[in-house]
Amino acid sequence: MTFDDLIDRRGTHSSKWDKMEHLFGVSAEDGLAMWTADSDYATAPCVIRAVRDAADRGVFGYSWEYPEYKQAIAWWMANRHDWRIETDWILTSQGLGNAIALCLDVWTRPGDGVVIFSPVYHEFAHKIGKSGRRVVECPLARDGDSYALDLDDAQARLDGSETMLIWCSPQNPSGRIWTEAELRAVAGFARRNDLKLVSDEIHHDLVYPGNRFVPMDVAAPEHRDRSITLTAASKTFNIAGQRTGNMIIPDRDLRTDMYQRLNTLDYAPAGLGVDMITAAYSPDGAEWVDAQVAHLDGNRQALDAALNAIPGVWSMPLQATYLAWVDFSGTGMTQDEIAARIRDDARIAVSPGPSFGSPGALFQRINFATSRARVEEAGARLQAAFADLQ
Amino acid sequence: MTFDDLIDRRGTHSSKWDKMEHLFGVSAEDGLAMWTADSDYATAPCVIRAVRDAADRGVFGYSWEYPEYKQAIAWWMANRHDWRIETDWILTSQGLGNAIALCLDVWTRPGDGVVIFSPVYHEFAHKIGKSGRRVVECPLARDGDSYALDLDDAQARLDGSETMLIWCSPQNPSGRIWTEAELRAVAGFARRNDLKLVSDEIHHDLVYPGNRFVPMDVAAPEHRDRSITLTAASKTFNIAGQRTGNMIIPDRDLRTDMYQRLNTLDYAPAGLGVDMITAAYSPDGAEWVDAQVAHLDGNRQALDAALNAIPGVWSMPLQATYLAWVDFSGTGMTQDEIAARIRDDARIAVSPGPSFGSPGALFQRINFATSRARVEEAGARLQAAFADLQ
Repeated sequence: MTFDDLIDRRGTHSSKWDKMEHLFGVSAEDGLAMWTADSDYATAPCVIRAVRDAADRGVFGYSWEYPEYKQAIAWWMANRHDWRIETDWILTSQGLGNAIALCLDVWTRPGDGVVIFSPVYHEFAHKIGKSGRRVVECPLARDGDSYALDLDDAQARLDGSETMLIWCSPQNPSGRIWTEAELRAVAGFARRNDLKLVSDEIHHDLVYPGNRFVPMDVAAPEHRDRSITLTAASKTFNIAGQRTGNMIIPDRDLRTDMYQRLNTLDYAPAGLGVDMITAAYSPDGAEWVDAQVAHLDGNRQALDAALNAIPGVWSMPLQATYLAWVDFSGTGMTQDEIAARIRDDARIAVSPGPSFGSPGALFQRINFATSRARVEEAGARLQAAFADLQ
Repeated sequence: MTFDDLIDRRGTHSSKWDKMEHLFGVSAEDGLAMWTADSDYATAPCVIRAVRDAADRGVFGYSWEYPEYKQAIAWWMANRHDWRIETDWILTSQGLGNAIALCLDVWTRPGDGVVIFSPVYHEFAHKIGKSGRRVVECPLARDGDSYALDLDDAQARLDGSETMLIWCSPQNPSGRIWTEAELRAVAGFARRNDLKLVSDEIHHDLVYPGNRFVPMDVAAPEHRDRSITLTAASKTFNIAGQRTGNMIIPDRDLRTDMYQRLNTLDYAPAGLGVDMITAAYSPDGAEWVDAQVAHLDGNRQALDAALNAIPGVWSMPLQATYLAWVDFSGTGMTQDEIAARIRDDARIAVSPGPSFGSPGALFQRINFATSRARVEEAGARLQAAFADLQ
C-alpha cells in the first residue's frame, strides 16, 4: 500500500465518509470528504501487524499498561522531538478529546473562564461550553502570511476568573509552528494569570521540511508546575478510532490529580489501543511517518497551487498538519455563498471556518490526507465552482 | 480451536497471567492463574474475523456507533434473554467498571450511602470507596446451598443517606440466579428507600442447564424510572480487554443524565470494540456461547467433584458464571493458612473471599474458564495441598 492507494471508506462506519451527507449535505456517491482530521490511506504496516497478531492470538481478556508501551512513547518523544520524558509522566486517556474534557473536569470549575487563542480547533470551545465553563476567546493577530500572538490584547480580555489556557501546537487550523520564544511567552502569560497550561500537541509529527517543532515542555520547563501536554499517535498513524491518547505530566501533584480522576472513573486503556501505539512508536513507524510527510508535502503544494490560482482565494502556507486553512474573503462572497458553492458545485465536505472562532469567518479548513489524485480532483472541482471569478 | 485448546497467555500483557506473581506471589512459571474473570481460550471465530477484517481494511480513523451495533445488542437481548429493548436505550461505556463509576458519578454525591448485598463483586465496594461514597454492606443470608435476600435485615442497616443500590445478577461470586419474585422484592426495596437501582448483569449469558436468567427490567418494568442495567459481551466472549460495555436505560430522563455526562467527558467507543460486539451478538456468536456453556458446565462439575472430596471444603453449587465460590471454613484453618496452602503448595492464584465482603471470610473464588485438563490439574493440586485432611 502507498499513500496513493485509496481505501473506499464509504459504508465502513467511517465518521468522515458515512456522516458526510447527514452533516454537510454532500452525497458520498460522488462527494469528497475533506473535513474531520483522519486519513484515507492505510496506517503503517507495523500497526496493522499488531492488530493481526492480536487476532491470531484470539484472546482479548484483561490487559494492562505494560512497560514496553510507555517505553515506546518515551522513545518516540526522545527520538522524534528531542524531548526527554520519564515513563512515569505518561497517563492514558480515551483519546485527546477525552483528555481535554478530563483536564477541564479536574482543574476547572463550572463558570471558570478558559482561554483559547483563535482561530483554533473548534472542539476546544465546544468542550469548554459542554462542561459549563466559559470560553475566553483571544484572537490571534494576522502577521504577514500567518498568525502571531498578541498577548497585550489577550490580557485585556481576561477578568481574573480564568483558570486554564488550552493551547494548540502545532496550531490547528493555521498549521503554524510556534517558536521557542513564543512558547515561553505563552507559558509566562499562563503564569502571570495563574492558568493551568494544557498544550495539545497532537499534530507534532506532521511537520514540513524546513520547520522544527518544539514541545512546550522543552521550551518552558520552568513552567512544569502548571503544564499538561497532550499527545497521541492518532493523527500521525490514522488510528483515532481506537480512542487512545496520552497526557504527559511531569509535575507529581498535577499527575496525582489526574491519576485519581482516571482511577475514580475506572478508566483503563483498551488492549488493542496499547498494542497499536506500542507498534507505531518504533523505528518502522518512524520510517513510515517520514514517507507520509513527504506525501503530504506534495499534496499540500498541489492543493495550494490549485487554490491560489482562484482569484480571491488564498491558502495559508502550512508549516505542519494536513489541514489547509483557506481564506475565501477575497471573493467578496458571504460565508453562505462560499459554503454553497463548495457543497453544491464542488461537492466537497470541508470544515467551516467560523467554527474555529471569530477570525475564521470566510475561511474553510480542507483536509488533504488522501491520495494525490483526490487532492488534484478537489482542486479542479473548486476551480470549476469558482470559475466565474477568473 | 476448542475450549480445551489453551493459549499460553504468559508474556502477552495479560493481567491475569502477567500480574499474578506481583499480586499473589504465585510464579507464572508453574502457577495457575484462576483469579480475575476472563478466559484462557480464544474468543468466538466471528469476533476474531471482525478484528482480522479491520486489520485487512487497514484504516482506523474516526468511527461512530452505527445502527448495526445497537441492533445487534437488541437482537441478543431479545433472542437470548427474551428482553425487548429499544436501540435508543443503549449507551456505551468504557467497560462495566467504568459504567459503575459513571453511575456513581452521575447519580450520587460524595458521602452518600450506596447499598450492596454481600458477598458481592469486590469492585462494587472498591469503586464506591474510591469515589468518596460510603459502602452500606447488607449481607445476604445463607439459605441451604446458597444465599437468600434478607430485606428486613438490610432495611435496618440503612439510615436514609443512601441514594443507590448496586445489584449483581447473576450473582458474582455465588453464581446465584435470582427469581422474578426476588428481583421484584429488590426493586421494591429500592423504591421504598428512593435508591437508583443499578443492575450489573454481565454474567447473564453464562447460565447452566436447568436455570433461567431473568433481567431486572423484565421482572420489574414498573421500576424503570429508577433502573439502569449494565451488560457487556466481555465475559461472554472474553473481550474485556477491549473495554466496551453497555448501559441500558429505558427511562428518558435517566438516559439524558448519563448521556450528558458521557458527552461532557467526550467519551465515544473505540471502533474495534464496536466491531467486536456487533460480530459477537449474532447467530454465530450464540452458537459459540452455547458450546462454551456446555464446556464450562463440565469444568464446573469436574472442579466441584475434586473440591468436595477434600474434607472441610465445599463448592457452592453454581447456577451461572465460571467462578466457583468455595467455602474452606470446614477445614478449621485461618484465612491466612488457607491462602498460604493455595499459594505455596497448590501454586494457584485465586480471588480471596474476604474481598467480597464480610460473608466471604474463609471463602475463595476460583475461575475455571480454562481447559478441562487445567481444571483437573487445579483440582489435583488443591487435593494435594490439603491432603493431610484426608
